[in-house]
Amino acid sequence: MDMSVIIRKGEVKDMPFVLELIKELARFEKEADAVIIDVNYLIDNGFSSNPAFQVFVAEMDNNEIVGMALFYSRFSTWKGKSLHLEDLIVKENKRGFGIGKALYAKFLNYAKQQKVKRVEWAVLDWNTNAIAFYKKYGATVFDDWRIVQMNENQLTAFTTKA
Amino acid sequence: MDMSVIIRKGEVKDMPFVLELIKELARFEKEADAVIIDVNYLIDNGFSSNPAFQVFVAEMDNNEIVGMALFYSRFSTWKGKSLHLEDLIVKENKRGFGIGKALYAKFLNYAKQQKVKRVEWAVLDWNTNAIAFYKKYGATVFDDWRIVQMNENQLTAFTTKA
Repeated sequence: MDMSVIIRKGEVKDMPFVLELIKELARFEKEADAVIIDVNYLIDNGFSSNPAFQVFVAEMDNNEIVGMALFYSRFSTWKGKSLHLEDLIVKENKRGFGIGKALYAKFLNYAKQQKVKRVEWAVLDWNTNAIAFYKKYGATVFDDWRIVQMNENQLTAFTTKA
Repeated sequence: MDMSVIIRKGEVKDMPFVLELIKELARFEKEADAVIIDVNYLIDNGFSSNPAFQVFVAEMDNNEIVGMALFYSRFSTWKGKSLHLEDLIVKENKRGFGIGKALYAKFLNYAKQQKVKRVEWAVLDWNTNAIAFYKKYGATVFDDWRIVQMNENQLTAFTTKA
């Protein structure tokens, strides 16, 4: 890495910058209005006695947070405990310096330490740069699985009728 | 439902039957050898002080466990806490009696109670029965997201090099 960047565990004070990165990715994924959580929600859920997620951040020597990898535990009924990488984000004007690779490596090394049997995440099929990155570093992209969701309105509609 | 079936929270004693259902689904998904966990692993991880999953089971009046819905918490950086339905399984010879619907409804009502903003799961694109079921009951199937994974060997290869 040519820039002076450290990768470290995210702290409460980083959450405003983590939220900005989340919103930047949502704009890139054409879902700018989809982010309904706020800084306090991140703090309450990420720094409780039973945290809902963990995060690594990339910090430059001027203390700017320029990237993050946010993840949490999942459970595969085939393999057992796994880790899910929810977001891997580097600020657009800080790409191309290896920061994404450094965050990805930090996450994967942590997963290996935790002895999980699988790591996983999701990618948009038109995000060819991300897909090429993941394949280059040894991950498998599955073409035959589809993600299914119910949002809050769909859940309310179903449970009101059922 | 025409058969006498109750849906209840799974207990330690149910785990051998839950594992059999997991293996039945793996055979259906053409991955019979993919299941590496055992009954003790399910007990250790599902019934600790911080359980990695929860499960509802469908029990017939002869005490046979004929289906289950296994799920756990996830965290969306857009919506906050969500629940992931890892497996929804009904024994092949007990299908068509509404047991899958009853398990699905139990899970969704639980999610609503927990005030999560989203529920989600994954389905194979050739499993047209399952896709029709989910759509009929109000879920959205996303065509543009792909699942990416590293298995244990891929994780070891990456972390040894990096």
